[in-house]
Amino acid sequence: MIVYERKAFYHETDQMGVIHHSNYFRWLEEARVYFLDELGLSYKKMEEIGIISPVVSISADYRKPVKFDDVVLIYIKITKYTGIKLELEYEIRDKQTDEIRVIASSKHCFIKDNSIVSLKKEYPDFDKKFLNYVDNQEK
Amino acid sequence: MIVYERKAFYHETDQMGVIHHSNYFRWLEEARVYFLDELGLSYKKMEEIGIISPVVSISADYRKPVKFDDVVLIYIKITKYTGIKLELEYEIRDKQTDEIRVIASSKHCFIKDNSIVSLKKEYPDFDKKFLNYVDNQEK
Amino acid sequence: MIVYERKAFYHETDQMGVIHHSNYFRWLEEARVYFLDELGLSYKKMEEIGIISPVVSISADYRKPVKFDDVVLIYIKITKYTGIKLELEYEIRDKQTDEIRVIASSKHCFIKDNSIVSLKKEYPDFDKKFLNYVDNQEK
Amino acid sequence: MIVYERKAFYHETDQMGVIHHSNYFRWLEEARVYFLDELGLSYKKMEEIGIISPVVSISADYRKPVKFDDVVLIYIKITKYTGIKLELEYEIRDKQTDEIRVIASSKHCFIKDNSIVSLKKEYPDFDKKFLNYVDNQEK
Repeated sequence: MIVYERKAFYHETDQMGVIHHSNYFRWLEEARVYFLDELGLSYKKMEEIGIISPVVSISADYRKPVKFDDVVLIYIKITKYTGIKLELEYEIRDKQTDEIRVIASSKHCFIKDNSIVSLKKEYPDFDKKFLNYVDNQEK
Repeated sequence: MIVYERKAFYHETDQMGVIHHSNYFRWLEEARVYFLDELGLSYKKMEEIGIISPVVSISADYRKPVKFDDVVLIYIKITKYTGIKLELEYEIRDKQTDEIRVIASSKHCFIKDNSIVSLKKEYPDFDKKFLNYVDNQEK
Repeated sequence: MIVYERKAFYHETDQMGVIHHSNYFRWLEEARVYFLDELGLSYKKMEEIGIISPVVSISADYRKPVKFDDVVLIYIKITKYTGIKLELEYEIRDKQTDEIRVIASSKHCFIKDNSIVSLKKEYPDFDKKFLNYVDNQEK
Repeated sequence: MIVYERKAFYHETDQMGVIHHSNYFRWLEEARVYFLDELGLSYKKMEEIGIISPVVSISADYRKPVKFDDVVLIYIKITKYTGIKLELEYEIRDKQTDEIRVIASSKHCFIKDNSIVSLKKEYPDFDKKFLNYVDNQEK
């Protein structure tokens, strides 16, 4: 499983003294970019050839707040991949205690020239990398 | 229905040329603060007497992106209020076209001195204001 | 003098219990966009015809913190305009007390197709609007 | 010299296609926290004993934009330390090319119980760590 490590920054706290809930969605995005890099699917390169992967929907359950200077590990898992749609699940855990902080999920599509694109049909190399990961992930 | 108006700022865009998806959660928070103010329940005053209302869970469906300088209206509705739990639903609509941009929902509790607090039991004035709104909202 | 009004949002606070110092630079940008709109020089339209106006340098003196829910007024003044360069000064004042919160300044240029553009030469209409404002401002 | 490494995140870009200028101030804060950690002066622990170190003033010159996924190195230098005041200078350089991206400086004080505190007088251990670093830095 691909794991993204992240330290909580001071500027991400709010006056409750914890990380502002909106920032976790930014961490998830960082984890996705890292995840794609690890899969050999650089998001930067995808954008350079004109493919973007917007968030269609996203949700989070907040179990326990993360505080400034805490280090978390973000575990990311593909729960659905059809060549057109991608669904991910995330666990944000405290690195030191392994306690869950946030559980989240997101849905994505792929867009090129303002239209939905099928990686399966038009980018078989990308498609293969996703499928390989899904296979190995399940074992 | 209470409606919060908001202009999309330049610093909220990302390199896709639209508002970054994490920022809508910040707009929802602004809408909640405005909503509580309109109900006569200032969030600032709640915090001053030691009550915080953290987000327990939150989710959003992104229908169409908001762009820089667009003006949106955020409609907010109480879908559940028990004195202990509060659930809200939101619609973010383009002010000019009335088209839906984002549909969202959030769940909240009330906390004082690190424990869950029942507004019903301990803050009947606050409780009454929520109940009054729920009643009028449904008619 | 053009004045931009802004309420301080909860998500802009940090765990010191005040607005995070980086956010004032975002407020200054909002004030600039508002300022250009008032001058009849919509920044949105400028970008649509390919002109961007990046920040070349920026600085701020923090006098007193702004807190959640405070309303501030941002006063903006052109201190230099050459057709190529634009320099601005800002005062962020508490709306209620008129006390200064932050003093700031910024320098900008205009860029089109990756090159510096002279509004004086290539966009005389824009140039005229800046010059008119500078004239009236000084009286 | 203490050097902080940082990757530019997607959510930090704006629609100019580069890192939004306000975000560099957040990176500088991260670099300061890292810097204090390296000095054996954890900012987290300072706050736990009631000392905060707000930004009194800050400025930045933007030489060349940083883009999504770029890795930068932030070099940080103490330019003044009096036991009461702290002044820092920063260079943000592209890791790959070593080119300068942003030059910045910031001034800080130390506050406890809403009053300025002299580390020299009241926290000689902290004072010594700053002085040691300044000495070694200059050699």
